[in-house]
Amino acid sequence: MIRVALDALGGDYAPGVVIEGAVNAVKNNPNIQVVLCGPEAEVKEGLAKLGYAGDAIQVVDAPAPVAMDESPTDVLRKKPNSGLVTCVALQKKGMVDASVSAGNSGAMMVACLMLLGRSCKRFERPPIGCALPSADGHFVLVDSGANVDERASTLVDFAIAGSAFAECFLGLEKPKVGLLNMGEEEHKGPAVLREAYQLLKEAPVNFIGNIEGRDLIQGKADVIACSGFTGNVVLKMVEGFYELHKKMFGTIDTPAGHRFDKMWDYRATGGALLLGLNGTGIIAHGISDAAAIEQAVVVAAKYAETGVAKKIGERLNAIKADEPKAEA
Amino acid sequence: MIRVALDALGGDYAPGVVIEGAVNAVKNNPNIQVVLCGPEAEVKEGLAKLGYAGDAIQVVDAPAPVAMDESPTDVLRKKPNSGLVTCVALQKKGMVDASVSAGNSGAMMVACLMLLGRSCKRFERPPIGCALPSADGHFVLVDSGANVDERASTLVDFAIAGSAFAECFLGLEKPKVGLLNMGEEEHKGPAVLREAYQLLKEAPVNFIGNIEGRDLIQGKADVIACSGFTGNVVLKMVEGFYELHKKMFGTIDTPAGHRFDKMWDYRATGGALLLGLNGTGIIAHGISDAAAIEQAVVVAAKYAETGVAKKIGERLNAIKADEPKAEA
Repeated sequence: MIRVALDALGGDYAPGVVIEGAVNAVKNNPNIQVVLCGPEAEVKEGLAKLGYAGDAIQVVDAPAPVAMDESPTDVLRKKPNSGLVTCVALQKKGMVDASVSAGNSGAMMVACLMLLGRSCKRFERPPIGCALPSADGHFVLVDSGANVDERASTLVDFAIAGSAFAECFLGLEKPKVGLLNMGEEEHKGPAVLREAYQLLKEAPVNFIGNIEGRDLIQGKADVIACSGFTGNVVLKMVEGFYELHKKMFGTIDTPAGHRFDKMWDYRATGGALLLGLNGTGIIAHGISDAAAIEQAVVVAAKYAETGVAKKIGERLNAIKADEPKAEA
Repeated sequence: MIRVALDALGGDYAPGVVIEGAVNAVKNNPNIQVVLCGPEAEVKEGLAKLGYAGDAIQVVDAPAPVAMDESPTDVLRKKPNSGLVTCVALQKKGMVDASVSAGNSGAMMVACLMLLGRSCKRFERPPIGCALPSADGHFVLVDSGANVDERASTLVDFAIAGSAFAECFLGLEKPKVGLLNMGEEEHKGPAVLREAYQLLKEAPVNFIGNIEGRDLIQGKADVIACSGFTGNVVLKMVEGFYELHKKMFGTIDTPAGHRFDKMWDYRATGGALLLGLNGTGIIAHGISDAAAIEQAVVVAAKYAETGVAKKIGERLNAIKADEPKAEA
């Protein structure tokens, strides 16, 4: 049994769609229990409205709302009784296996960082790992938007973390790692990427070289390492492309159309994982509907079950232990 | 009458598709003449094979082939009789209005830079301007891949050049200019973008703020200013999306399907313009087929006819003249 704490007030359409997503998640996945953290009366009323009376959903009272633009450190300090902070605190106490919020993502990151703590000291801010669709399946994008102005060595750490992520979550052996760049040749691109290329040649990952924007969509690599800035642009372009496609074509009622919807709908992604932490913190999309919340809970359970967070910590700490050897 | 010089040996499928594209361009556009620069006998044979005997295509003998990985400066120095250099040299002499190559893009850039010269001193390397598809029409992307590690002031120059480009080429008044970033708020993103945001507020463009990857596809801005690195990723992702769509769905025989093909097919873009030069130098895609070459010629003629290059030079030089006033 996997227990997932879910921020009932997180997201643009909370708490309605969050409660509905939780109910569907437990109904469709007998191995998942959800702890809904939010204003107890309101959440229970929502559950009653949906006719849910099972015991796979527990409600923990956490009445304080968190605004999308509220200062993350303020939220952590002043709102311990918010749904968001409560979700993470429950995991810290060992009462749940994963914590999900579609609310203020900065606050979720700070709460996870401060309460769960880093599994390694290599990241100043936990990078965001996300499984995105490509032509043939999925690739893991790290960092999807937490960091800016990274050093070359940080990009290498993204590659290592992404590689462990792909192994656990996508079940790949020796996932192919690419560096997102503007050409295949190693002398191409900004200075930081040219430096990262050289470091990646020696890093403990299956580095296949630079990957261009077109090849990324074609699925040439299983893991894409890039700056948080670039990752954010990529992530949002994928979303934008899907939206545009829906707007122009609606649902295409062919096998290809169904496959496209299943893979490319942002709701299929469910949520992105904060990497390098002692635990499983998931950021879901602010515009999540019930289906997206359900998928975020399912993905959170899978992250916890496959031990992605732990594996990433081990992998990065192993590098650290190796460092003196490398210098010798 | 607009005269376009075309590098007959440029591109992966040259000279066959180049000659075919030239023939179709002049047949379908009575206001265009093409000067094919390449090995004379071979080009004339190609024209004869297609049964073309009109006088809208002229052949200039330029037999030296240029490899895709040949050093740009070597090409300029050692191969004045290549198709690529000849195309640009003819424009320098006033014999054609625009020069197009689907060959070695670095060599084309250096040839244009050295032979045509800069129209203003603001750009070290001419940025690449490209009209890309969005939900509602097109947006102009500057820089699409010539520069890396730009200063904030260079990003502002990209915005000004892109704005003049959109006015002339897309016929827009006061085009909306966005800065590609990872969030809407002005404090978001890498340091260079935060600085560029502040400079753009005072720049002579219709700056509408930061634009995210999703909004870019949705067509929220008419001009996107970004680093050459980011622009290259965006450009190639757009190409990748189109390829993926074709792979999954083929041609969708509905009005939306035709509109999508017409807008998103990379061949519809035709070619990208080198900005900030005394003349019209166009880089076409290396994988161009005959339709792409035809479109590159048509677009080149439109660039020349609408005076994009001249307008951009004037606009950037006006800024320069204003500078002392701004400092006073």
